[in-house]
Order: sequence, then structure tokens, then C-alpha cells
Amino acid sequence: MKDILEAYKSGDLSLDDALDQLGNQHYQEQLLQDLGHSTLDLDRHRRNGAAEVIYGEHKTPEQIVDLTRAMLTAEHNVLITRTTADVYHALKVIAPEAKFHADARSITCIKAPATQTTSTIAVVTAGTSDLDVAAEAAVTAEFLGNKVALINDVGVAGIHRLMNRLAEIRAARVVIVVAGMEGALPSVVGGLVDKPVIAVPTSVGYGAAFGGVAALLGMLNSCASGVSVVNIDNGFGAGYLANMINRL
Amino acid sequence: MKDILEAYKSGDLSLDDALDQLGNQHYQEQLLQDLGHSTLDLDRHRRNGAAEVIYGEHKTPEQIVDLTRAMLTAEHNVLITRTTADVYHALKVIAPEAKFHADARSITCIKAPATQTTSTIAVVTAGTSDLDVAAEAAVTAEFLGNKVALINDVGVAGIHRLMNRLAEIRAARVVIVVAGMEGALPSVVGGLVDKPVIAVPTSVGYGAAFGGVAALLGMLNSCASGVSVVNIDNGFGAGYLANMINRL
Amino acid sequence: MKDILEAYKSGDLSLDDALDQLGNQHYQEQLLQDLGHSTLDLDRHRRNGAAEVIYGEHKTPEQIVDLTRAMLTAEHNVLITRTTADVYHALKVIAPEAKFHADARSITCIKAPATQTTSTIAVVTAGTSDLDVAAEAAVTAEFLGNKVALINDVGVAGIHRLMNRLAEIRAARVVIVVAGMEGALPSVVGGLVDKPVIAVPTSVGYGAAFGGVAALLGMLNSCASGVSVVNIDNGFGAGYLANMINRL
Amino acid sequence: MKDILEAYKSGDLSLDDALDQLGNQHYQEQLLQDLGHSTLDLDRHRRNGAAEVIYGEHKTPEQIVDLTRAMLTAEHNVLITRTTADVYHALKVIAPEAKFHADARSITCIKAPATQTTSTIAVVTAGTSDLDVAAEAAVTAEFLGNKVALINDVGVAGIHRLMNRLAEIRAARVVIVVAGMEGALPSVVGGLVDKPVIAVPTSVGYGAAFGGVAALLGMLNSCASGVSVVNIDNGFGAGYLANMINRL
Amino acid sequence: MKDILEAYKSGDLSLDDALDQLGNQHYQEQLLQDLGHSTLDLDRHRRNGAAEVIYGEHKTPEQIVDLTRAMLTAEHNVLITRTTADVYHALKVIAPEAKFHADARSITCIKAPATQTTSTIAVVTAGTSDLDVAAEAAVTAEFLGNKVALINDVGVAGIHRLMNRLAEIRAARVVIVVAGMEGALPSVVGGLVDKPVIAVPTSVGYGAAFGGVAALLGMLNSCASGVSVVNIDNGFGAGYLANMINRL
Amino acid sequence: MKDILEAYKSGDLSLDDALDQLGNQHYQEQLLQDLGHSTLDLDRHRRNGAAEVIYGEHKTPEQIVDLTRAMLTAEHNVLITRTTADVYHALKVIAPEAKFHADARSITCIKAPATQTTSTIAVVTAGTSDLDVAAEAAVTAEFLGNKVALINDVGVAGIHRLMNRLAEIRAARVVIVVAGMEGALPSVVGGLVDKPVIAVPTSVGYGAAFGGVAALLGMLNSCASGVSVVNIDNGFGAGYLANMINRL
Amino acid sequence: MKDILEAYKSGDLSLDDALDQLGNQHYQEQLLQDLGHSTLDLDRHRRNGAAEVIYGEHKTPEQIVDLTRAMLTAEHNVLITRTTADVYHALKVIAPEAKFHADARSITCIKAPATQTTSTIAVVTAGTSDLDVAAEAAVTAEFLGNKVALINDVGVAGIHRLMNRLAEIRAARVVIVVAGMEGALPSVVGGLVDKPVIAVPTSVGYGAAFGGVAALLGMLNSCASGVSVVNIDNGFGAGYLANMINRL
Amino acid sequence: MKDILEAYKSGDLSLDDALDQLGNQHYQEQLLQDLGHSTLDLDRHRRNGAAEVIYGEHKTPEQIVDLTRAMLTAEHNVLITRTTADVYHALKVIAPEAKFHADARSITCIKAPATQTTSTIAVVTAGTSDLDVAAEAAVTAEFLGNKVALINDVGVAGIHRLMNRLAEIRAARVVIVVAGMEGALPSVVGGLVDKPVIAVPTSVGYGAAFGGVAALLGMLNSCASGVSVVNIDNGFGAGYLANMINRL
Repeated sequence: MKDILEAYKSGDLSLDDALDQLGNQHYQEQLLQDLGHSTLDLDRHRRNGAAEVIYGEHKTPEQIVDLTRAMLTAEHNVLITRTTADVYHALKVIAPEAKFHADARSITCIKAPATQTTSTIAVVTAGTSDLDVAAEAAVTAEFLGNKVALINDVGVAGIHRLMNRLAEIRAARVVIVVAGMEGALPSVVGGLVDKPVIAVPTSVGYGAAFGGVAALLGMLNSCASGVSVVNIDNGFGAGYLANMINRL
Repeated sequence: MKDILEAYKSGDLSLDDALDQLGNQHYQEQLLQDLGHSTLDLDRHRRNGAAEVIYGEHKTPEQIVDLTRAMLTAEHNVLITRTTADVYHALKVIAPEAKFHADARSITCIKAPATQTTSTIAVVTAGTSDLDVAAEAAVTAEFLGNKVALINDVGVAGIHRLMNRLAEIRAARVVIVVAGMEGALPSVVGGLVDKPVIAVPTSVGYGAAFGGVAALLGMLNSCASGVSVVNIDNGFGAGYLANMINRL
Repeated sequence: MKDILEAYKSGDLSLDDALDQLGNQHYQEQLLQDLGHSTLDLDRHRRNGAAEVIYGEHKTPEQIVDLTRAMLTAEHNVLITRTTADVYHALKVIAPEAKFHADARSITCIKAPATQTTSTIAVVTAGTSDLDVAAEAAVTAEFLGNKVALINDVGVAGIHRLMNRLAEIRAARVVIVVAGMEGALPSVVGGLVDKPVIAVPTSVGYGAAFGGVAALLGMLNSCASGVSVVNIDNGFGAGYLANMINRL
Repeated sequence: MKDILEAYKSGDLSLDDALDQLGNQHYQEQLLQDLGHSTLDLDRHRRNGAAEVIYGEHKTPEQIVDLTRAMLTAEHNVLITRTTADVYHALKVIAPEAKFHADARSITCIKAPATQTTSTIAVVTAGTSDLDVAAEAAVTAEFLGNKVALINDVGVAGIHRLMNRLAEIRAARVVIVVAGMEGALPSVVGGLVDKPVIAVPTSVGYGAAFGGVAALLGMLNSCASGVSVVNIDNGFGAGYLANMINRL
Repeated sequence: MKDILEAYKSGDLSLDDALDQLGNQHYQEQLLQDLGHSTLDLDRHRRNGAAEVIYGEHKTPEQIVDLTRAMLTAEHNVLITRTTADVYHALKVIAPEAKFHADARSITCIKAPATQTTSTIAVVTAGTSDLDVAAEAAVTAEFLGNKVALINDVGVAGIHRLMNRLAEIRAARVVIVVAGMEGALPSVVGGLVDKPVIAVPTSVGYGAAFGGVAALLGMLNSCASGVSVVNIDNGFGAGYLANMINRL
Repeated sequence: MKDILEAYKSGDLSLDDALDQLGNQHYQEQLLQDLGHSTLDLDRHRRNGAAEVIYGEHKTPEQIVDLTRAMLTAEHNVLITRTTADVYHALKVIAPEAKFHADARSITCIKAPATQTTSTIAVVTAGTSDLDVAAEAAVTAEFLGNKVALINDVGVAGIHRLMNRLAEIRAARVVIVVAGMEGALPSVVGGLVDKPVIAVPTSVGYGAAFGGVAALLGMLNSCASGVSVVNIDNGFGAGYLANMINRL
Repeated sequence: MKDILEAYKSGDLSLDDALDQLGNQHYQEQLLQDLGHSTLDLDRHRRNGAAEVIYGEHKTPEQIVDLTRAMLTAEHNVLITRTTADVYHALKVIAPEAKFHADARSITCIKAPATQTTSTIAVVTAGTSDLDVAAEAAVTAEFLGNKVALINDVGVAGIHRLMNRLAEIRAARVVIVVAGMEGALPSVVGGLVDKPVIAVPTSVGYGAAFGGVAALLGMLNSCASGVSVVNIDNGFGAGYLANMINRL
Repeated sequence: MKDILEAYKSGDLSLDDALDQLGNQHYQEQLLQDLGHSTLDLDRHRRNGAAEVIYGEHKTPEQIVDLTRAMLTAEHNVLITRTTADVYHALKVIAPEAKFHADARSITCIKAPATQTTSTIAVVTAGTSDLDVAAEAAVTAEFLGNKVALINDVGVAGIHRLMNRLAEIRAARVVIVVAGMEGALPSVVGGLVDKPVIAVPTSVGYGAAFGGVAALLGMLNSCASGVSVVNIDNGFGAGYLANMINRL
């Protein structure tokens, strides 16, 4: 690095090039790890408050094992989403601490548990069919060190079911609401609490639900303020964001 | 007509042709009126329980005056939807009894009021912005002889507003629910009453409301049973159907 | 409950909290049943005129058996839609009265038959390919105590087939019309009867039918009045609503 | 041209280049006319059975006058669609025989009338609001020398209106059916005649008609055979194709 | 039938009821055949110029055998589309003359061949991948008695391939053009011939082809006149319509 | 209220009815105000942490004046969004403290300023064309008592512009990112900060931007974690949610 | 800057912070210019080979004048797209060299003409209605120093028009093809040349053209290789990219 | 051919027919090869700079073997895309030089390697899940004789990963950027380089990624200039176009 600075001082390097080379070298040596198929970003914990999470879809078991090994070596906890039991069995060999969460389709490997929050994240589902997406949100939030309260099957067709659990929901610091079909529950919850509501549309429903589009549009157009939306079935995204808010 | 039957008997006409000619002649003489630009269907009251209603959009004032004159001559009450003050002024000349409902964009000409129902139709709106569509529903239902109860601005962002008016809604025989944005109100109402709910999506909302599509999809995917849907902003359709059910 | 009222009287509880707690306790003890994965709403029969129906999709056989057992214990008849023969065999163990309707993909368990209506619901299909959706509508309506008349394969490509069965259709108090492809049959029927028409689009058709979207749009834009629409392939929703109207 | 053939014979030109140059020169001299802004294709009458038609949208009056002058000079009849009264007045100066068809938004300039067909094209509309599109079809067909029978406002909500005019429709050699909203009329007509049906969806309707998409999908999914579809509001296309079929 | 006419004469029946009963009885006895699951329309040959065709999708082999038996008994030729080898083997038992066209996924049973046309239908494909849809069109047209010329793989990426076969295409009386991807071939062909072009979009292509939507839109927006469109992959519809035009 | 409780004690009222009536009366007397056209929800501040905000679209100036007067009487600050200068002038008469924010199309009337936050909300725009939506977010956040830092025109086409302002963005507690066209900026920002990012798609862009749909989809599919999305052009929703998070 | 490097050497600054500050300061002082409403990126010419271009839509005349003044001061040529005559008149005051291209809706201010290319860019249009978009492409390419050959109105409905101009098109180094409706021209051109084809869909066409979507999809699905696509009506983007390729 | 020219000279043939016959015969004899199912275009190398490429989807192994044999006989190199190991094994029999690229789903048969370029094509991926599409692009570019630099997993969620590889990307003459989800990488790369960027959207992502539509729209709306787009997952198209540009 000294060479670069001296080349700059002597005028052999333009400032642009000096800055580029300094940045590159710094990252190359310490924070980025090139695995060929992937470029592991070990700086993410410092930069974003949480280490990189491995999105399992479209990756081979070999690639996931590679990534996990590199992260564990760097002393990061590992969360793999959208994964399968096959990957879990392959991982067991190098990471005996790995745990498979079947309903959430996720694997966690905990080297050192994250510091625990004192406040709670509520995960509320409209129906029994939304449980898997809610599980992904809950596993993510717990992996990142949050307390989670799960409140199931309180959709708007029987509004008293929701009223009955309102105290628990109001006690949380952030509320995740998971719903398919018309996706109306976040609006109703948003009108009853004074905490941010993260809405997760699910692909549950048939016909004109269009794989979650109806719920997504419903949530984006919520007449209640304080509601924002993540991608269809994206339990992970909701859990991650809830942790970020819960830790403010 | 006798000629036709005899020609059939004599074998000059096939049965098919005899039947066709009988039907044609019958309708031609009595029940259909050819105005050139339109074919007025004077049999609709007998067949459907209510006379033809004039859809004003894309019609010239002259065409509407023609149609109204013909219907009044046949002793039908006249309802014109999606119309304007200009048409109203043109109509006044031939139909002094004409009345303009500005918010509903409708004109009514009553020769003899329809027999009045004893039971009520509730028209419920989610927000103040849905009032015009609700007015079209109410004008239609009243034109057809129904009592109407209007309950405004009780959308799901403040669910207590709805709870507060629940008794009035439950007292009705049919419930029309008018909502834009995420269109969640019909689901909540549907979960609280034991009467058919007719959901009307409105084009209220911006961005991803897509001119009422979000509300339409929300209502089609309602998790509450007993809810059916009409076209976006179609207050007339809801009022007409509600009358039909209210008269069963 | 007395405690709550006294705490309120003494000022230890605000009115809001007193009302919330009263409501919660009341429902908790009697009307809501928390099964962990689901919150069973035993009040629905009183509130909506029919008990909760179990939507089978995305539920495990264990969850369905749990829900059925709880409902039978509460002396409710049970209807399960979108289900399979596997679930049926699992249910047989605890509910020998269970009956599987293969074409309708539904299971019924009747403790005490519903009171029978005197008037009829007509279920009309455009083509042979729409039979399964029509069966779901018919099973639902019969489960709820209605007489059903099934009129098959009378779509608009051969309009005489419809004319031939018109008397049967006109004899009904409510008409369900099931059609795929261009979904034109409800408009034609709606123009010929003076009863409410519930239109059910099906996902039958290929190419630009887009899984029922063409039929859905056709029905929403019906030029005949008195037609409302339920979700694509939603035979259950149509049967449920028809019962509600038939019992007015 | 001789030069080219000789250059080819002598080997100075490859066969490819010789063919290209021959073709270019031939067209350049006789059949294509470069107006700068447009390339007029004077060969179209020979090739397609009818001269080029001027699509007026997005063209300046000057461009349209240029094109018309060139076509009249070449002794072609001229049809301009999607045009305005302003263009008409500009054209009058150079083409006193120009005629403006306001409802069809078209201008015709007839040098020598096309030979008249003996068979008829039926143009059938579902409603009064479809008249303008039907007028474009009729003007086009008549410009090309066809007899046209116009049958208005016989949509499916009152099927007897259609039955009443069936004989006229069956007497035609080709049938154009113009409909908005659910676009069901072509299916019904298609099921009743043994002639090709050209379906024209119109942008009439509101809400979920989506500017003619509902009608377009309805027609593409027609359960009646013998129906094909042109673009939304494309009366010209239907009239042109009908002429082509009528002249076979 | 005499009874009905006399009851009408005596005033016991209104004209409406008399006509309805006459029509019903006539059709019931002779032209409609109720198979329970289906209503066979034996009048279609007289009315539409060709007997009903059995759409095989969503039908059980038993239903198809029933329909075939009834049609053969009525001396109709039978065409079954969208079917499988399994159905073929089931049919062989009752109809030894049945023939399976694997690429067209169709079965034909010919009692008496249709009268042969003298003119030809050209079926043109853009690519090898469009062959199956083209086969369905060709089988249909041949079943109905037409001569068919098949011209394969002449899409616009190599326009000379098309030019090379132009004489064959121009010799036909009707042209069917089958294309996927951008669906441009019908426009180019339409600009080169003076015969009606029936465009068939196919679901060939990946990504933004959206299952044939790109080709469908391309064809609907064809800048060439004389082109109309049928549903995606609807080779049958194109073949049927081409026969209708070819027989004018 | 005592009457109700006594009627319940005496058995004249069922528990259900007693609870309903208690709730109704409580809200009716104190927290809901029926203005005919609107039902003002004065409880929202207690329930949601901020008073109702008036959505100006589709409301007449008279309705807005009515609502404002009622809110000011109840000592609430008033924010009106999607409004015009005309409404502002009408309001001035009853609320001299009203202030019009032209770029944000908003009016504020402050009775008593909200308590000021110590932490900051960053509002970041991709381009100059996104300024109006950003202004709506900023006005909302400031109205609710937040410090706002505005960072303009730092979109991804010149990533150094963003890097240059990163320190300011990282200093905020919540980050709102406003972008049209491809909507990529929230992903890049989300990858560089450890605070929640609220993404606001704008309708800026032409052609395949589809009025903000491209940006909306881009944001929903963000590969960066910690990003959630509100409706297209919904600056208000983002500002409101940011306040909610900033006050945790 | 020295201060930063020394603070880093002494350990007062981490490497990250030192790099950030170095980059910031460098850009702040020389390459980025903060105009409040905009952040002008004066480095773009060095980085991308061409200076920033001002997108005029959604910008006030004042903002555009500000941006132009700053760019002219920095000795950059200025191109403003999607602009109006009003902006032109405002600009004239500070930039007398400004020139307005009305059909292209663009303004250019040339301080020093770009070096001229020796090779040519062909801009080919399908129809006269595509001229404005083509003009935007041509103005952009010429502004950047390219020779442009314009070939108009050679769409696929008359393929000989294209063949006639093929030599001119083949003589270019890059080909821009502008087309609306079905957008088939780029496929045909792509099949006839050995140069990259940049396809520009236009919003020309009606009905199912959906504002250019049909053309866009057609071009994305081109069966010819060597074709890539820019946004609907994005003549500027095509001209800019063509220059970039032409200068390789 | 002489016969044709003489027939023309003698007047037995019109010029049109002479030109047609000359063209046909020329192509028939030398450049087009009719394989029944396909029309092989052996002129494409001369016309487009590269021989026809076999698109494997929807083709039988027999058809592909036929096509390959014909191309090898004509001394063309062969590239087959979207193919399988089964086809590879069938091909081995006639083409021992065939090579299967499993990740790219492609087969190459090289008779004589293409001349090698001196400049490089960079293929950049946003994530590990985009590798297969990138492989198709790389195999295509290498087959056509280009040097390829592959830079993996440098998406915008960790922008430093991209900065770190910027020098390699800037060293290329053309840049292909492959990305799914929000598809933001091409915009960022486009803002950092002065070379043409070919953007390839992939179908990677779930929920509202809609099979690559989100990425496609993001890329079409790129705020960076110099970016054009090919179809979803169309690695081949990008590689082919990159070769075309790289050889200019």
C-alpha cells in the first residue's frame, strides 16, 4: 500500500488510479473472498449490521458447503434460506452444529449466539396456510437474536380472533403480518397499533390470487399508515428488517 | 301469424323456418322497437323484472332523448346512468319529470313509482372518496323501489367506525360495500353479517391501485364467504342486483 | 368477568381496557378455540348463518383432522374443500360418517342435516369441462340444505341447448352459471331470467384464456344486469352465497 | 437494366448483386415513390388486391396531402382512416371529390368506383356505443366495392333482438361482429351461422374492460368455431379482410 | 306438437309459451341428445356447415367414447382434438376406423369422407418448433375435405426462405401462418399475398415470449391488412375457419 | 352506560349485545364524529401515535374544510396531502395558520408543534425528477416532529455522487430512498448502511416504466436486505412510517 | 488531502475512513457540482466517453438553465432531450448557440463539435409515424459526432421497400431500427445484415399495441440474432449506444 | 438460369416473374437446403457473419442430428443451444468432435476454429444463481472466436465487490451483464464504463420477480446510457451480439 501512495506522490499514478488501487487492495486482502463461483462479502456485518445470508435457491450443495465453510472460518454465524434436507445432510459433515428448520426451509449454524434483544417482534398470520412463510420470518429474527411472539390464524373473516390477541401484538416493538388471498390483515392491524407493520404477502389462494399478486397489491394500497411491504413469500426479508428496526 | 302456421301445415315452410318466422314476427310487432341506432327491448321488464336501463356513455343526447321518449311512451320508468347535465337539459323538454342526481351522474324519470320494499339495502363505503359510486348504487336501488341505508367512511384503518354502525348494517337484507385502495372492507363486513355482500371496487387510490384493480382482486380473493363482486365503479350493477335479491 | 366490571367501576381499569378484556375473555372461554396452528371460530354459525368451512389446500392431514374433531365435538357439520382421498382416509378413523365427493374434491361430515329449503338453486355449466367446479358448488349448496338442479353443457356455441332448458333454470330462486373460455354464458342467462346470477369463471381453455382470466373479465363486464362474480374455479364460494340468498 | 445483365455476364457483378440491382432498379423506377417522409408502395394493388390505405394517426395534414396527391396521380382511389375534419378541409383543395365520414373518422376519394360485389357483408353491433367502429368497417368495405348490411344493438343481454335479425345475418357471405364489454356476441353469432365471423373488440366499457382487453380475450377464447379476431377498435381491418374474403 | 298448437289456438297457452314448447320439443326429439355429462348438438352440421368437434382436454376417456358413439350413430364424422394415445386405444374398440395423429394430438373417425375442395389451403410455419400446431391445423382442414400445402421453417430471420416458396403460398385460396417468438411472419406474408391470412400464435419461445403472448400481440398489431388472429396454439380453430372460407 | 350494564346484569341483554352497545356508545360519544360525508376518527392519535391525516384527492374543498375544522376543534394538528392551492385559499378563512407546501402538494396547520426527535431521517433521491415525491415525505416527517436531511440526485448512473454523501446518509436513523425508472438506488443504499431503508418508487420514466411499475418491482426484488416498499409516489406513507420508526 | 493521508499514517483515521474522505474530497472539489436540486456529474465524459445529457421531462426551465450554464462553464457540449420550445426560449438568453430540433423535442448547444466518425449509423423507420423517435436518435448521434443515414417508411407490410434500400443499410457500421405496431422490422433487418441492430419500439399503434408493449415484446423475442432493445420511444438511448459502438 | 433470362428477353416472362424465378433457382440450388421439417439457410454466414445456430428446444434428437449433419457437410461449425445430454449422445455417433457444455446446456462441434479476436468480452454476473445464463453467453462468444473474461457474483448489494473488479471490466471491448431479481447491476456498470453494455435479465428471484420480468423492466429503464437489453435468460443472444460488436 505504501508503494501506491508513493507512486501517487511521485506523480506516477493519477489520484483516481491511486484511490482505485488502494481500495481494491484493501478489500482484496481482507474483506472479499473469491470462491470462483461466488464473491463472499465478509465486510457485510460491519457495514450492514448482520453477516451475509446464503440464499439457497439455484445453488448446488457444493457451492453452499463452500460458502458455509468460509463463513464459519471467519467466525460468522450462518443462515441458509430456501434450502433442503439434502443440503442439510451435506453440511452436517463440516458443521455438526447445523440445524434444519423444515417448515421454514432454512438451516442455521450458530458459532456464538447474537446478543438477545429485550423487546419482542410479533409475527401474525392470517391463516394456517401462511405458517411456512411466518416460520421463515421467525427463524430469521431468532437467528439474529430477537424474541418472537407467534400469533396464528387471526385473519379478517373472523375479526374477533384478532381482537382477542391484540394485547400481545401491541406489546411488540415491530409487527410482521403474513397474509395471502386479499391480504387485508396488515391494514386492520396497522389501524390498531402504533408500531411499524411489515406486511408479507403470501402466494396462498387460488384463481385470481395470481400467486400472491392480489395480496401484494392489497398491502401496497393499505389505507392504514405505517405499513410497508416486502416481496411475496419473503419471510426472510421481513425477519431481517424487523431485527434491524428492533435494534434501533 | 296464421299464414305462417298454415304454410307450415301445407309443407311450404320447414318447422325451423316456421318457428323462426313466428318468433321474429311476434317480437317485431310488439316487443322490440328499432330506432335505427338502437334496438329497444321492451320485453325486458317481463323477462328480467326491471325495464331496460340506458347506459349513457358513448351515446349522443339525441340518441338518449329518442330512447327515453320510446320508453316513456311504453309506460316504463327511465333510468339513465353515466350521463351529464347537458343530457338532463335536453331531456327536460320532453320529460319534465326528469330528475338529475349529480353525484351519481344519473337521471331518473318516474311515470309510476315502483312498489316499495319493506326490507332495506345497506350501502356501506370505506371512505369519503367512494361516495359517488355509492350514490349510483343508492339511486339505482331507490329507483327500483327499495329503502336504502347509507353508512359512510367506515373503512378498515379505523375498525371501530365499522363496529359502531354494525347494528344498522345487520338490519339490512342485502349489503353493498363500496371500497377502493386495498378493498378490504367487504371481507371484514362479510365476516360479521349473515346476509349476501355485494362488493364494488372503486378506482380510488393512486400508484399500484391501478385504477381499481387492487381493490377488485382483493374482493375476488375475499377470505370471507358470501361475498361476490361487480365491475370497478359499477354502482349501478350493485344496486340492480341488490334490488333483485331484496325482492326474492 | 365480574372482576373486570368491578375493576372498571373502581377506576382500576379504563373503559377501553375493560371492554377489551370483557370481549377477550368471553370469546376465549366460549367461542374461539386455539389449536396452535389454527384459531377455530365457533361463533361463525351464529354470526354468518353457517359454520366455518375448512379450506383444505396447504393444510396437513393432521391439521385437518384436528379441526374436524373440534368442530364435530362442538356439534357442527363439517365441509372440507380442495382436499384429497388421503385426507378422507385419515378422517374416516375419527369420523365414520365422512363422505368423499371425488369430482368436487370435497369431504362432508353430517351430524344433523341442515333444514331443507323449498326453493331450488340451478347450477348451469357451459361445457363438460366445467363439471368439477360445478360439483363443488352443488356439494356445498346441498351440504347447507338446498335443493340443486344441475343443467350441463349448454354453452353459447349452441344457444338452442340453453333455450331447451330455460324453464328449469327459470324455476330456480338463484342461478349459478359456471363457464370457462370466454365466459359468455352468464350474460346470456342473465338476459333471460329475473333471478340473481352468480357467475363462476373456470380455468378451462388454453392459450389466451390465461387460467380463467378471460372468463373472469368477461363476467365482470357482463352487459346483462343482475350478474355478480366470484373467484376463478371458486365453486364453493358460489354455492355458499347461493344458499345465503336462497334462505332470505 | 441491360447494363446490369451484361455486367453479370462478364463477371463484373456477382449473381447476388445483379439480382439486387435488378430488383432495386425495377422497383425504384416504377413501383415505389420516395416522398422523403414516406415510401409510397404503388405495387400494393397488384400484390394485395387493394391499394395502400393511409393510416392518418401521427401524420401531419401536409404528409397526408402529399400521399393523397401521389396516389390520385397514380389513379388509385384513396381511403384515409383515423383522420379529422381539418385534414378533410386541407384535402378538399387538391381533391374536390373527397368525402368525410365523421362517425368513421375516415375520408374517401374515389377516382373510379371499385367493381361491386353481388354478395353482402353483414356488420353487426352489440350496442349503440359500438357504432363508430362499425362505421369504420362499413366505410372500408363499401369503399372497396361491397354491399353492406348494418344490424345494430343486438347484444346478448337481449338475445331475442339477435334472433329477430338472424335471417339478414345468414344472408351475408361474411359477418363482422363488433362488441365491447364482455365481447360475447361473436360466439353466439358464430354458433348460429355457417359463414366466417370476423370479431372486432371495442374499447367500450368501464373498469375491468381495460380499454377493450376483456372483449379481445373473450373473442380469442370463443367456444364457437369459425371466429377470428382483429385489433381493438380496428374496424378498418375487419372491413378490409371481409372484402378480401367476399371477393374469393 | 299438434297439441301445443291447439292449446295455443284455444288460448290455453300464451304465444310465448307455445313458441317455447314448440322449440323445446322439436330440439329435444331430434337434434339435441342429453348424455348426462354433455348435451350433444346434432344440428350443428346443418347450422354451421360442420358437425360438432370434440375438445378432448378435461374430458375422461369414457365421456369421449360416449360422445363418439353417439355421433357415429348419427352418421357424423368425428374429430377429437387435444387428446392422447390412451383415448385412441379406448376408442378403437367401438370405432375400428379411428386414426391417431400423434403430432397433432388428434383422432379422426371418418364414416364418409367430406367432399373434396378443388382449391388449396397453405399452412406456413416460421420454425421447426411450430410443427405440432401446424399439424393440428392441417389435420382439421383435411378432415373437413380440403387440400393442404405445408411450407415449413420459412421465418423472417432468413427472408429468402419465404421468397423461395412464395409461388406455392400465392397459389392457395386461404393462408394459415403459424409462428411463435415475435410472430412477425403473418405480417410479411400478408404484405405479399392477396388472400386472407389466418395467424396462429404459438407458445414457442422463452422468457418474454410469455407463453405466446408476444406472438399474439404481434399478430393483432400486424401492419399488413387482411390478417386476423385465433387463440394461442389454436391450430384447430385456424383449420376450421380456413375450411369455412375455402368453401365460400 | 350504567343502564346497559344493569340490563345485562338483569338478563335483559345478552353479553354480546351488552358489549356491542357499550363499545358503540363509548365511541359514539367521544371518539368518532359523524360529519355525514365522513366519519372522523379522533381516537387515532391515541391508537396509532399520530392523528388522522386528510387524503385530499377526490374530496371537495367543503369536505376538507369540514374535516379540518373538526380536527382543529379537537386540538389536533392537521396535515392534508394531495391537495391544491384552491383548497388552501378556502382553508385560510378558518385556519390562518395553514401553510401550503406547493412541491409536496400538502397543507399543514400546526396548533402545537410535535415534540422534536433528536435523530434524523435521511430522504435520498435518485434524480431531480423525484423531488416532489421526496418533498411529500419530508413535509410529512417534519410535520410529525422529525429532523430531515435531504440528499438529492445521487442515482446509480453516477455512483460516486452517492459515495460522496454516504456519511450524511449513515448518520440518519432511518433512510427513505425515492427513485423512478429502474428503482435501483434503494438496493445500493441498502447494501451500504445498517439502518432500515424505506423505498418509494416514483412514476418518473417513460415507456416501459409503466407509471412506476418498473421501479416498484425493482424495489420489491431488492437483493439488499433491510429494504421495504410503499406504494408508487407515496411520499406521505414513507414519511409517516419513518417517523414511527424514528420514535421507537 | 495531505491532512487525510497524514491522519491515516498517524492512525487517527482508519483506512476505510481515509479512503472515503479522499474520494469525497476529490470529487467534491473537482468533479461533482451540487446545484441544490441536482448533483451535476462533470466526470462523466472521462468515465463514459460522453458528457451528461439533460433529461428534460419533470424539470422546470429554471433547473434546465442552471444545469446548462454549469455544463457550458465546464466547456461541455449540452444536449437536452424531451424538452419544449419554452425551455429553448429561456435558454437562448444564456446560450445563443442553442438550437431547437422540434421533431426530436431536443435542444443542442455546441461549444466545440465532437470529432467526426468516418463510418455511418443507419436509422431505419417502419412507418412515417415513427419519424419523431427516429429524429431523437439521429439528433443524438449527430451531436456526438456521427454521420447518420435516415431510411424512412420501409416496414414489413411492403418488404420490397426494405430490399430497395438494403445497400445503404448494409453500408452502415451500426443499424438503429425504429418501429411501432408489431415491431417486426428489426427481425427482418437483423436477418439481412452482419452489423449490430439496436431496436427501438415506439408507442405507435392502437388497441392491443398497449403503448408500445407489443412492439417491445416483438423485438425482445426477435428470432434474428444480433438484435438488442432499448426502452419504448427511447430514440436518445439508441443514438447514444450507436455512437458508443461506432467509436469502438 | 439462361433460359429464364432468354424467356424474359423474348417477352415470355414478365420482369417480376423473371426476377422471382432467378432468385428462387439461385437459392434453391445453392443456399437453402430443404430437410422437410426444416429449411436450412446456408447463406447465413455470408449474410450475417456467422452460420445458423440450432435452437434445441422443441426439436427431436433426430431433427437436430439431421441439421448438424447437413451443416457439417457444408463445412460450418455447429452450435446447439437449449439442449440435453441425450442429444449429445445421439450426436456423438456422427460428430465425434462434439462437446457438451452442461451448465450452458449447449453443444459445440468445431470443424475449424473461428479466427480469434484480440480484444476481450467481459461477462459479469450479479450472483451465483446467474451462472448458467452467463455460461451460455460465454460458450457462444468463445465458439465465435472471442476471448472471454468471467467476473462472478459482484451484485449491487455489496458494491465494493464490483469496484474491486472494475479494472478487468474496463479492459474489455464489450460488457455483458447478467442479473436477476431487480436487475440493477447493468445500470451501475453502465455508469462506470465507456463501452457498450448488453444486459441479460435472468429468471432468478421469487415472488414479484415474475420469472425475470422485474429484471427485464429494470434494465429497459436503466438510467445509465449505453445499455441495451436481450430476452430473459437469453445468454446466447448476448454472446452472439457481443461477438458482432467485438469484430467491428
